[in-house]
Amino acid sequence: MEQTFTYNNLYQFTHSVFTAIGCSEKDATTATKVLLSADVRGIDSHGIARLTGYIRLWEAGRINATPDIKITYQTPSTAVVDGDAGLGLVVAPFAMQVAIDKATNAGTGWVSVRNSNHFGIAGYHAMMALEHDMTGIAMTNASALVAPTFSIERMLGTNPIAVAIPANKQPAFVADFATTTASNGKLEILQRKNGDAPTGWVQDAAGSDTNNAHALKDGGIMLPLGSDREHGSHKGYALGSIVDIFSAVLSGASYGPWAPPFPAYVPMPENMPGKGLGHFFGAMRVDAFRPADEFKDHMDNWIGRFRAATPAPGHEKVLIPGDPEREMEAIRMKEGIPINESVFNELGKIGNKFGITL
Amino acid sequence: MEQTFTYNNLYQFTHSVFTAIGCSEKDATTATKVLLSADVRGIDSHGIARLTGYIRLWEAGRINATPDIKITYQTPSTAVVDGDAGLGLVVAPFAMQVAIDKATNAGTGWVSVRNSNHFGIAGYHAMMALEHDMTGIAMTNASALVAPTFSIERMLGTNPIAVAIPANKQPAFVADFATTTASNGKLEILQRKNGDAPTGWVQDAAGSDTNNAHALKDGGIMLPLGSDREHGSHKGYALGSIVDIFSAVLSGASYGPWAPPFPAYVPMPENMPGKGLGHFFGAMRVDAFRPADEFKDHMDNWIGRFRAATPAPGHEKVLIPGDPEREMEAIRMKEGIPINESVFNELGKIGNKFGITL
Repeated sequence: MEQTFTYNNLYQFTHSVFTAIGCSEKDATTATKVLLSADVRGIDSHGIARLTGYIRLWEAGRINATPDIKITYQTPSTAVVDGDAGLGLVVAPFAMQVAIDKATNAGTGWVSVRNSNHFGIAGYHAMMALEHDMTGIAMTNASALVAPTFSIERMLGTNPIAVAIPANKQPAFVADFATTTASNGKLEILQRKNGDAPTGWVQDAAGSDTNNAHALKDGGIMLPLGSDREHGSHKGYALGSIVDIFSAVLSGASYGPWAPPFPAYVPMPENMPGKGLGHFFGAMRVDAFRPADEFKDHMDNWIGRFRAATPAPGHEKVLIPGDPEREMEAIRMKEGIPINESVFNELGKIGNKFGITL
Repeated sequence: MEQTFTYNNLYQFTHSVFTAIGCSEKDATTATKVLLSADVRGIDSHGIARLTGYIRLWEAGRINATPDIKITYQTPSTAVVDGDAGLGLVVAPFAMQVAIDKATNAGTGWVSVRNSNHFGIAGYHAMMALEHDMTGIAMTNASALVAPTFSIERMLGTNPIAVAIPANKQPAFVADFATTTASNGKLEILQRKNGDAPTGWVQDAAGSDTNNAHALKDGGIMLPLGSDREHGSHKGYALGSIVDIFSAVLSGASYGPWAPPFPAYVPMPENMPGKGLGHFFGAMRVDAFRPADEFKDHMDNWIGRFRAATPAPGHEKVLIPGDPEREMEAIRMKEGIPINESVFNELGKIGNKFGITL
């Protein structure tokens, strides 16, 4: 059974929960906006469905609700930010704003973040750059679930990359994708439906192909974008590695198999080489390369030409990265956001704890 | 029949050819080093096998052997370079050096290039950053051969991305890959052997899967990394698009289906929206984030841990991006570089034209 809620319903509930754990008004507002941007855009796995997970991390003492987020080092175009174990939902927008400020002065800004937690959808942070006529880039490392090519050991997270590029009359180009063949969210949808996973998404613990969407529970592994060596999995492995290194080795966060796990019941890895999760953000002023209007007009031309590309048989049109999420946003802001039964029940338990009703 | 040549044999021949078309001593040296770095590293498709292609472009008036390569716009951390229709093999190292110089002063440097041509292997340019204790990034757009997800029209090139990250005792992390399932070079190898292409590499002109490695000759298309929607081809499409936009829309080069074709006999597209091919380069000083030795020690730890990841059944070890090319370089510098018969014959024809013997 699914129930549908308005954005405002979910906003008030989520904001109250973040306030209840001690977040400031400002931080609760930021965290709520970032978290719900996932639900609004149709990425249900990364939205309010994760609120319980964040609260459990706070209960376990792994999330600091009143962090002192600081720039610890900087140059004209770079900075390192220490998130003080805060919610990634709050730390990430802080760091992205630093990147934007750097870009305002130096043309571009690049910020690596340590001592953070999961930051919601990467696309939210990348899109912060758009209103400044900047290209935004966001990435993060995450709990290890993915095996490198030729390995069966969980060494990398699904390590997403988002890139948002402004246009003029056309909507912005917004790519936001895990560096695995399928995101963990897509796998979770199949798990709830007890559906089969397509071959090439996961392997069992022995490294054999499996269609069991629950394989991760028995020690299975997710596969890098490309699935196998013949189809370029070494490229997905390289991409996930680059995200890990930019996010965590540059900043002093924990990398690779040492990335802190999202489920609070999973013990922290031993001998962690850094602090918390890591993120990496970039902002590039488009007029640091050519006049902004000229660039955005060419982006309109680029987008228009790609939309007009000859469709494959059985397909009506070619999509531009960001199109599906924009369509979903228009629908959900009008018709509401569906919440499935198990998520609703989890939210009810949090609500009871803090005396808040959804 | 394959013949084997020493690096010095190939160097002298190639250098003489570039000098013969009018390149300065300095430019001929740079172009030769960049071109042959592909042969040395085992990426035979991008090395001396392409020399004939470059010469044909020069004969067709599409390559300027004495370009006036210039910075046309800049900020503290960015620049736009106009390659004046020069060899990409010469324009790219110029632009990468600008990125390195910017990074020295501002922490990072980002350079978008227009009016260039094919630049050899992306990895060469990215690796220029390593000796400065910088991370190097290089990408380029290219002649359209790849269809977006849900399309059968050639809209993007194989648009490679290279990222080189320095370590201390370990060799550097060097990823260099096309944003397609398979590179055009791998396809060319199958074409020469009359071998079958694995499903998921190419489709025929109607958008049906095919194992015909020659499908491109009959209007076929290459597929973005991921191969199909179910296996994430929209991610490969997004990556190839980002490379196209950073390389060509930012700089004022021709993008998407308007990218100038490499074969000189293919007419230039109509209504080109910019000048020549585009590239994009980045350099980030690692000590713009944390002390260089500290960073490089953690990279050693990262690389060592990934090398030690549990191998999959049937595999001995996990590779780090750059390992296969380094192994090939050690072999070829010692045992020589094999040149296949058709490439040798083509080189013979160029040699005859300019009175140079291989």
